[in-house]
Amino acid sequence: MPATFSKNDTQNMAIALKLASQGIYSVKSNPMVGCVIVKHAKIIAKGYHQTFGKAHGEINALQQINHQAQDATFYVTLEPCSYQGKTPSCAQAIIDSGAKKVVIAMLDPNPLVNGKGVVMLENTDIEVKIGLLENDALTLNQGFVKRMKTNQPFVRCKIAMSLDGKTSMSSGESKWITSEIARLDVQKLRANHQAIMTGSGTIISDNPLMTVRLDDVSPTPLRVVVDSKNQITDTSLNIFNTDAPTLILNPTNTKTLDSGKLNLDDVLIQLGNQGINNVLLEAGPKLISAMIKSNLIDEFVIYMAPILMGGDANSMLNLIIKDMAHKIKLNIIDIKMVGDDIKITATLK
Amino acid sequence: MPATFSKNDTQNMAIALKLASQGIYSVKSNPMVGCVIVKHAKIIAKGYHQTFGKAHGEINALQQINHQAQDATFYVTLEPCSYQGKTPSCAQAIIDSGAKKVVIAMLDPNPLVNGKGVVMLENTDIEVKIGLLENDALTLNQGFVKRMKTNQPFVRCKIAMSLDGKTSMSSGESKWITSEIARLDVQKLRANHQAIMTGSGTIISDNPLMTVRLDDVSPTPLRVVVDSKNQITDTSLNIFNTDAPTLILNPTNTKTLDSGKLNLDDVLIQLGNQGINNVLLEAGPKLISAMIKSNLIDEFVIYMAPILMGGDANSMLNLIIKDMAHKIKLNIIDIKMVGDDIKITATLK
Repeated sequence: MPATFSKNDTQNMAIALKLASQGIYSVKSNPMVGCVIVKHAKIIAKGYHQTFGKAHGEINALQQINHQAQDATFYVTLEPCSYQGKTPSCAQAIIDSGAKKVVIAMLDPNPLVNGKGVVMLENTDIEVKIGLLENDALTLNQGFVKRMKTNQPFVRCKIAMSLDGKTSMSSGESKWITSEIARLDVQKLRANHQAIMTGSGTIISDNPLMTVRLDDVSPTPLRVVVDSKNQITDTSLNIFNTDAPTLILNPTNTKTLDSGKLNLDDVLIQLGNQGINNVLLEAGPKLISAMIKSNLIDEFVIYMAPILMGGDANSMLNLIIKDMAHKIKLNIIDIKMVGDDIKITATLK
Repeated sequence: MPATFSKNDTQNMAIALKLASQGIYSVKSNPMVGCVIVKHAKIIAKGYHQTFGKAHGEINALQQINHQAQDATFYVTLEPCSYQGKTPSCAQAIIDSGAKKVVIAMLDPNPLVNGKGVVMLENTDIEVKIGLLENDALTLNQGFVKRMKTNQPFVRCKIAMSLDGKTSMSSGESKWITSEIARLDVQKLRANHQAIMTGSGTIISDNPLMTVRLDDVSPTPLRVVVDSKNQITDTSLNIFNTDAPTLILNPTNTKTLDSGKLNLDDVLIQLGNQGINNVLLEAGPKLISAMIKSNLIDEFVIYMAPILMGGDANSMLNLIIKDMAHKIKLNIIDIKMVGDDIKITATLK
């Protein structure tokens, strides 16, 4: 029987999730985690995991109350860790504090923990309830969850195109398809990813910066270039400036297919091995098509401008599909207006 | 100073507009018109123009009260006609009924009336107020309004396409891009138009019926084929069945351009001359592109399926646009989901 929760439980966990999300620019390969400690129906402490390698959310909350939480209830967005890693075990700290009850949004997908934190708590007389706002917690850490399960990051593919599905003119011209407001939205999207990935063609033709340019936050996602033909050699290219780190993946450091193209599964595993939980793919039709073909895209974010670019312009995909039976099916997750543009979020079906 | 209206005025006009819309399948080249007669704050009669050539909305309402409306207020969605045509003058009938006040949503764009009905009423001691819910009234009769002003019908272009802007596979296969629910929506759209227009290419490759297939209503829009090369000669084609009338426009009956293509302005004027207020264009990329190039499309209704058809499939347009400066700009009027498909309504900017 699934656990049942009160309205207060839900409110407290919602606060914990909101706290967790504050770690977005600094937890890096770690999950975002929030913690709320409640006693006599009042919140007595709040904390979240702020910085990679530093104290977890539970510890940050416990520090506020001198690690004394006798008979209190903990609301944590992720199962407390069972082991001493870079920091001490959170499950042990909760036990030591004298807690009476722990409400957990989701189990930790990290195989080092996965269920062991719960067992530690249950081995004392602490009551444990699991699954409150679980979907929200899973969405918050979808990159971490995917990497723990597959060793690959969550891949979000951003496309800016016209209403007739074109991403550049036949000349290559593509500035600007979408509005300034949509482009600002893309900057925010970039800031939420640990890596921005593109292909060598885009680097050579556009010489992009591939950085986050926002006033209020300054994350520096890894710039990743898929360079099957070792074409990215010019160190004066913008991607080699000091604004952010850059990783060029080519046949020297990445598995290749018989076709001479890079093995895109290996590309993602390499990123996963570096602790990259999520990647924003901002590429041309070739790399996007190859990623779709390999079924490696978790989510599309399409900015569709209210313009027509005509039959001669380049389509968003160069994938060849011969008949309707082989069309690629999508699930539309969300549609909204961003300025004058339509923002469509979708997944492969 | 624009006229001011009370909440009751607005409610009564809204009822009149709703009544008017009931004429959609039967007024043909006439405007849809509704009428509500109010006395002592109560509706004493309601009417609408039901059938082309038969009584107007005002007369249908007056018949309910034996043409006696002493001191009553009329709410009419269109200026009452000033002249005796197929039926007697409505302005005169209102005067004869003893009315005290007439509230009008919009003036009649028909040059035979345009303002003369109002003058007739004002020449008695009847109070006349104009402009209540005018935009709704204009939208209701947008086809009639456009034809009165330009001699051409309102052209709505329906496109069924994939998210990547494709309307058929390279083989020509296009069944089915959109869902059954979207296709039912198209049937309803067809029912609201006096003509359905396509090009000879679509007729030859798909042999469509081009009819309305709905359970509850059975309008028979004119089937119009643009046939620049006199290719539509096979009388066993579905468009020549007896389900609806069919008009083939070719160089024999239509002006042509130096290119040998039909003059599309003349195509629309011919339809306007036949009393066609609105046309649903359901054509292939060539005819749609030519219509856009001639700036002859008033509204797009795009059903966008959550599928990708790939780089080899045929784009919605074959119009050649060389640079971003010449992109075609649209206004998005509405976006909604129809089943799993996205329905986008837009106009040329």
